[in-house]
Amino acid sequence: MEVYLDNSATTCVFDEVAELMKVLMCEDYGNPSSLHRKGMKAETHVRYAKEVLAGILKVNEKEIFFTSGGTESDNLALIGCALANQRRGKHLITTQVEHPAILQTMKYLESLGFIVSYLPVDKSGRIRLEDLESTITPETILVSIMHTNNEVGSQQPIAEAGALIKRKNPNILFHVDAVQGFGKAKILPKKMNIDLLSVSGHKIHGPKGIGFLYVGEKVKINPINYGGGQQTGLRSGTENVPGIAGMAKAAQMLYGKLDEDVAHLYKCKEHFVEGLKKLEGVTVNGLLPDGSCTEGTAPHVVSASFAGVRSEVLLHTLEDAGIYVSAGSACSAHKPQPSATLKAMGADKAILESTIRFSFSVFTTMEELDYTLKILYDKIPMLRKYTRKA
Amino acid sequence: MEVYLDNSATTCVFDEVAELMKVLMCEDYGNPSSLHRKGMKAETHVRYAKEVLAGILKVNEKEIFFTSGGTESDNLALIGCALANQRRGKHLITTQVEHPAILQTMKYLESLGFIVSYLPVDKSGRIRLEDLESTITPETILVSIMHTNNEVGSQQPIAEAGALIKRKNPNILFHVDAVQGFGKAKILPKKMNIDLLSVSGHKIHGPKGIGFLYVGEKVKINPINYGGGQQTGLRSGTENVPGIAGMAKAAQMLYGKLDEDVAHLYKCKEHFVEGLKKLEGVTVNGLLPDGSCTEGTAPHVVSASFAGVRSEVLLHTLEDAGIYVSAGSACSAHKPQPSATLKAMGADKAILESTIRFSFSVFTTMEELDYTLKILYDKIPMLRKYTRKA
Repeated sequence: MEVYLDNSATTCVFDEVAELMKVLMCEDYGNPSSLHRKGMKAETHVRYAKEVLAGILKVNEKEIFFTSGGTESDNLALIGCALANQRRGKHLITTQVEHPAILQTMKYLESLGFIVSYLPVDKSGRIRLEDLESTITPETILVSIMHTNNEVGSQQPIAEAGALIKRKNPNILFHVDAVQGFGKAKILPKKMNIDLLSVSGHKIHGPKGIGFLYVGEKVKINPINYGGGQQTGLRSGTENVPGIAGMAKAAQMLYGKLDEDVAHLYKCKEHFVEGLKKLEGVTVNGLLPDGSCTEGTAPHVVSASFAGVRSEVLLHTLEDAGIYVSAGSACSAHKPQPSATLKAMGADKAILESTIRFSFSVFTTMEELDYTLKILYDKIPMLRKYTRKA
Repeated sequence: MEVYLDNSATTCVFDEVAELMKVLMCEDYGNPSSLHRKGMKAETHVRYAKEVLAGILKVNEKEIFFTSGGTESDNLALIGCALANQRRGKHLITTQVEHPAILQTMKYLESLGFIVSYLPVDKSGRIRLEDLESTITPETILVSIMHTNNEVGSQQPIAEAGALIKRKNPNILFHVDAVQGFGKAKILPKKMNIDLLSVSGHKIHGPKGIGFLYVGEKVKINPINYGGGQQTGLRSGTENVPGIAGMAKAAQMLYGKLDEDVAHLYKCKEHFVEGLKKLEGVTVNGLLPDGSCTEGTAPHVVSASFAGVRSEVLLHTLEDAGIYVSAGSACSAHKPQPSATLKAMGADKAILESTIRFSFSVFTTMEELDYTLKILYDKIPMLRKYTRKA
């Protein structure tokens, strides 16, 4: 049995998406900037993709800008807005549990003289709104908070944060990294006071190498690359038409039955967490204060620590059984470092070293999870015995 | 009959490439940063692609960095090197006939205080080495010259320029935008003293949204984006595995029979240019001083001006006959502006307004070109009559 539980790292592309992309690569392969029919046809696909994505977010098509993925979307949002708005102030706010695409970009902005505040999180991995409120200063120009954490799955109070920010100062821009949240939750920028939203294609059964950034029409933002002036000059470079159309198709498929899928994923999660709790010495990370794992936690991520078992050892043990998981986040290149998110949540060394992330997709079945639990029940005692001896 | 002669704008993806990509999207879809087997397999594909591309350029695999395309490669090369080397000087050199991805990035660098010299070109669209030599100062840190011009197909004397630059000062970095040249010419960075080389996937029958930058191992360069630290930190973001493998496959297919294809393309070009010359009032742009169109001009680009016929009118007339061409370069978004390259070559207004670019691929046949010539013979006199009346 092969059980892929690393969907927060990347997902398989829907067959329908791959089929569409093949047509756009081999038949309707024009350059949207070309003035002839083949160019127009390519442009039609780009326009349709914008319509689909804008429809899902309930925003204007002109507010969708395609990038090469989540990392570029985050870079464009932060650098583009910080530089374009620095006359109003040089203070930025984010959280301690963001993805490196945010944290490293913030570090770069610090090197340019910006001041960045990093909000702490509670034991469930969520920020406190009072911390956000007290951190905002008259110098604050941008707040960036992720929708769903990639390591433990905690969902931040985005709508509440958006309302709070705008109440304090409507000029402060609110960016949301929704790379892990899009496709698994309803996200409505206008309603939630979100000015910029980052999305990646390959986390939602779309292709790698594509993403988009929603940019509210009133947002002042600079480009971070220069060239042929595509996408109204904000993001130069020939549009990746197959990638764009593929991502939109995947989003359309997911949002076409979102409620059903999310209900299925939460059911999977509850079942799996219950199963994990039957094992001794297991800590499930990122649960809500009351121990539940519904809204407020992502439907597709379960982070668990297996006391006395090193995460890499368990990862490879599971791999031998055909089960693919992640130790930590796997979003960074081959660096199994202690999780910054868990650290921020106050986890001790024993937890940090023994954590595994299981992440589901719409293809995940109860059977697969029962098989995974069975392997864990079989192997964990043995691995602990081995660890004690060593 | 459908005749696609806009291959400098973009190309159809080879079927074999699309097939490979489908497998990497739907089956071997892992994230190369994941530590399990599925991640390893994805990484193997990335490593193999590097081997293939490095083999073609005769460079080290570690010197290949994947980007989202030609524009990003150019931005990374110029901004990354200018910022990393500015202590040695702030003078950059390029040409007047570069792609906007170079020219606009240079403008951005000017806004940061860099001084940029733009080399003129002769009537065939080529720089003069003596101009390059006299422009280099002790402050010069980077020279960027395109391999093949995207509008008229002139090939620059890259090897000679490289030798000259290094003779003047071995510390000056030499960047070559080879977006139009790669796949149609042997390019050997080490032999030609090239430190950085930009390549795009979708110009060589590979996918859109992918490209690479060759960076010689001694080159000091800063990243221009920030995140998970992939690709030794120079280019963060999950690697676009299907795009990377697809681009490498396309390059492998092209370089497997390069000599044969290039000979075919030159034969096509000579035939087509001869045919064009039979029409009255046609100027073929970018020919060598002796009127020939072999080495020194790209094998796949024919730029021609049809006196008295507006290029957009001719473009749509050809489109009606199923022939797809470009008015100007089509690399910029929907802006049929007068060609900067032709202007730099000294072309007058009549030429600028009546220029069409025909660009071939390995799929282009003599039959297609004869059909195109026939349509031109039929339509040009009529279009001229119409223009005169109007």
